[in-house]
Amino acid sequence: MLERIEQRKTKRSEAAQELSVLRAELNALENKVKEKKLPVIITYDGWSAAGKGSQIAKLIKNLDPRFYKVVSTRTPDTSERRKPWLYRHWSVLPKKGEFLILDRSWYRDAANAYLYGEISKQEYKRRLKDINTFEKQLTDDGYLIIKFFLHITEKEQRRRIEKLSSSEITRWRVESHDILNMEEYERFFRRYDKMLTATNTEFAPWHIIGANDKVTAEFSQLVTVTNAIKGACAAVDKGELFRDRPEFPATEYKPHKFKTLSTVKLSDIDMDKSLNDEEYEEKLKKYQDKLFKLQNLCYQRKIPVIIAYEGWDAGGKGGNIKRVAAALDPRGYEVKPIASPEPSELARHYLWRFWTRLENDGHFTIFDRTWYGRVMVEPVENITPKDRADMAYQEINEFESMLNDWGAVVIKFWINIDKDEQYRRFKERENTPSKRWKITDEDWRNREKWDEYETAVNEMVKRTSTEFAPWVVIEGNDKKYARIKALKTICKRLEERLKNEND
Amino acid sequence: MLERIEQRKTKRSEAAQELSVLRAELNALENKVKEKKLPVIITYDGWSAAGKGSQIAKLIKNLDPRFYKVVSTRTPDTSERRKPWLYRHWSVLPKKGEFLILDRSWYRDAANAYLYGEISKQEYKRRLKDINTFEKQLTDDGYLIIKFFLHITEKEQRRRIEKLSSSEITRWRVESHDILNMEEYERFFRRYDKMLTATNTEFAPWHIIGANDKVTAEFSQLVTVTNAIKGACAAVDKGELFRDRPEFPATEYKPHKFKTLSTVKLSDIDMDKSLNDEEYEEKLKKYQDKLFKLQNLCYQRKIPVIIAYEGWDAGGKGGNIKRVAAALDPRGYEVKPIASPEPSELARHYLWRFWTRLENDGHFTIFDRTWYGRVMVEPVENITPKDRADMAYQEINEFESMLNDWGAVVIKFWINIDKDEQYRRFKERENTPSKRWKITDEDWRNREKWDEYETAVNEMVKRTSTEFAPWVVIEGNDKKYARIKALKTICKRLEERLKNEND
Repeated sequence: MLERIEQRKTKRSEAAQELSVLRAELNALENKVKEKKLPVIITYDGWSAAGKGSQIAKLIKNLDPRFYKVVSTRTPDTSERRKPWLYRHWSVLPKKGEFLILDRSWYRDAANAYLYGEISKQEYKRRLKDINTFEKQLTDDGYLIIKFFLHITEKEQRRRIEKLSSSEITRWRVESHDILNMEEYERFFRRYDKMLTATNTEFAPWHIIGANDKVTAEFSQLVTVTNAIKGACAAVDKGELFRDRPEFPATEYKPHKFKTLSTVKLSDIDMDKSLNDEEYEEKLKKYQDKLFKLQNLCYQRKIPVIIAYEGWDAGGKGGNIKRVAAALDPRGYEVKPIASPEPSELARHYLWRFWTRLENDGHFTIFDRTWYGRVMVEPVENITPKDRADMAYQEINEFESMLNDWGAVVIKFWINIDKDEQYRRFKERENTPSKRWKITDEDWRNREKWDEYETAVNEMVKRTSTEFAPWVVIEGNDKKYARIKALKTICKRLEERLKNEND
Repeated sequence: MLERIEQRKTKRSEAAQELSVLRAELNALENKVKEKKLPVIITYDGWSAAGKGSQIAKLIKNLDPRFYKVVSTRTPDTSERRKPWLYRHWSVLPKKGEFLILDRSWYRDAANAYLYGEISKQEYKRRLKDINTFEKQLTDDGYLIIKFFLHITEKEQRRRIEKLSSSEITRWRVESHDILNMEEYERFFRRYDKMLTATNTEFAPWHIIGANDKVTAEFSQLVTVTNAIKGACAAVDKGELFRDRPEFPATEYKPHKFKTLSTVKLSDIDMDKSLNDEEYEEKLKKYQDKLFKLQNLCYQRKIPVIIAYEGWDAGGKGGNIKRVAAALDPRGYEVKPIASPEPSELARHYLWRFWTRLENDGHFTIFDRTWYGRVMVEPVENITPKDRADMAYQEINEFESMLNDWGAVVIKFWINIDKDEQYRRFKERENTPSKRWKITDEDWRNREKWDEYETAVNEMVKRTSTEFAPWVVIEGNDKKYARIKALKTICKRLEERLKNEND
């Protein structure tokens, strides 16, 4: 794509009139963005010294600084490297009605990271796929993504970098990466070109800007931004997803088809399994000791462990988690109780609050309720339309697949009890003063929708049991049995992973 | 204090009965903590190999992992060093009704940091003072802080570290810091002792535990924790602040007395200042250019800049901030609009949401409304009792003083308009479709309380205008004048700071 980019020159005086019209337009559009609650992400990538910073400065002059955020993406630091690679990009997602402006984006972590020697070619290729998935998820959720690549010619780049290096005031801005970018222009050119082609999708097409001339560049970007926002606002009014017109033939995006394992319906599960006290105590000690040792190994090898707990109300998640946690070195895990989302969470993609809760590699993150709320409580309670919730099976598989790529062991429990057992436990809670806080009217209301929930759970287990993140349904009528099964499962999964590491 | 600590030995069999009573008690108390919405912080400091980890493990066995969080405090990493030193401790504050358990706490960043050579003696002394202030602020807000120092003898420490080092499985746990801690036991002893004395306050007294024997240690900590929680819950019922009985004579805490500058009442301000278009355009360019250069210098010297905007509704904060932001390199600042607190913010100390919004050093953090809501809108609207709000003048001065110690330039603007001007602007907003979103019924309601607010503002300006963080009241009837005054003030403050740096 790059070789087709023209480097036009525009006289400032000629463009002045049009530029001021565009600026005024953008200013007015900003109010629309707020009104329509449109989340906007504008990314600036491109050559070193292509003028990303100054183009960003020109854009935001027309925006209210309370509604945008500019984030510079640099070489990931130690703590960023301990998370999945997209973590830092998820973290900065704007709220609905706000702008996020990125001075280098996730694309820095693809082609540049590869050419700077930070990642392997294989990892680079995987990241390109992840990027398409990421951008698809966001745009499917109503995010507008405008991607700029600022292109300058080799000669122009050299001129600029030499100029920067020659002044004492600006010299510090030229880093070794920039020198490499200049000296290996040809190599970067080919790599950028391929990256642009691979990620020029219908939902997030590239806007490549000939940036040798700054006035032309400003003009191009303002036209693009205003058009895209107008289009996206119109789409909001029509209740549609916005699709920009790609400037180059779009690359077809094929969502990954996940193979799912064969699973069993809840109604077919033998709910009579149990353990007596003696068996329980003996196994509890055995598996807790084992788990402690396994945690130590995971910590040393920086393996992240994600444990997701779902289950019926009063299923015994709390007590189960407690037995797992009791086995672990407390410095190496965190339990994340998931309640209804707060306003700042509702204003973003629903996966945002889970991404941002991930602990460092080597640590356990234990979720008490999870992202599966999206396909259970949300559609059942009409919080999310059924067709939107339906998209989540794929999105969740993608999310867990990225966790798996990061190196995480992903363990998911559905703690199952039957309807009679739940009734018994609800009553017991009501009759025990110290447990009364655990039971609310909502629990009784949810219980009335048991069948609807059961259908949703069956569907969820069926569609999101992948090889890398299988569901484990735990027979929970007997709490002791349930706890041992959870512990045993965790140990088994960690042992398998550690064995593979050693191979 | 340390030399008075006995190292008793308790047989596990003898203590078994009592321990199990204590554990059951703690388990029951946990429900009380939730019910009374008591936030609990338990810190574990002490010698290397004193058994902090295993004591923590023993404590949390009795707690529901969904309601506590264990955080290990290690050597601060690059990003932590770019914030005020207490930032990372503020960040992890628990919510009301939850436990935070710290494996090493802010005390690591005092004596240990000093003896490990991370900070100067002067900085160490300042941190001791900061710690008392920090703990005072938290306990005044209803936090329960239980501080443990695990003390072991030199001989016992050597035995343990040698044992750890001799096994291949545990060797990695012995770090160079631990070796130093052992080899310079005497020096650490004296330093710890002084630190303990200096921070043994009435509101957060030390519990020093003779930890040579693990059973004794467990017993001591469980007794302490259960007693403290019982006391704190009883205090909540009585609507009082809990004060634990210190085991050693408490060090008197004297809050720092801040000198305030002489200030002027709002009613005495000349509100007729204005600029014509020509003057405005000329000065705008001049000060924006200047500010851009100053920002660059602040960035290079890693000077943090905090700008706090307060003012009447429709005072023109937005437009003013926009002119400041337009001058800045967008990668170096962030505007933080402050709205009503979210549930997770209400569940913590009111300063928490400001601490956690601080950008890195070298960056500008611009607050659109600030922590001063505590002494304006909160008491006026009866969100916070007047006597509680009254404590905030001191707390805010302390907060800003810590920002100043961090190296920040703290600039505070009150944008003043008169009542007629506000009426004119409200009406204009109502009559302009694109501005209508800016005006709400609440604005009209607030306007009715103008006099009450004016009294609060005068009080605020009077009591929080310190040398390091003076208020600048901006005459805002003329927006152009107001913008230039803000820009000019910022430039002046930054020039002064940079001049001092050079001296």
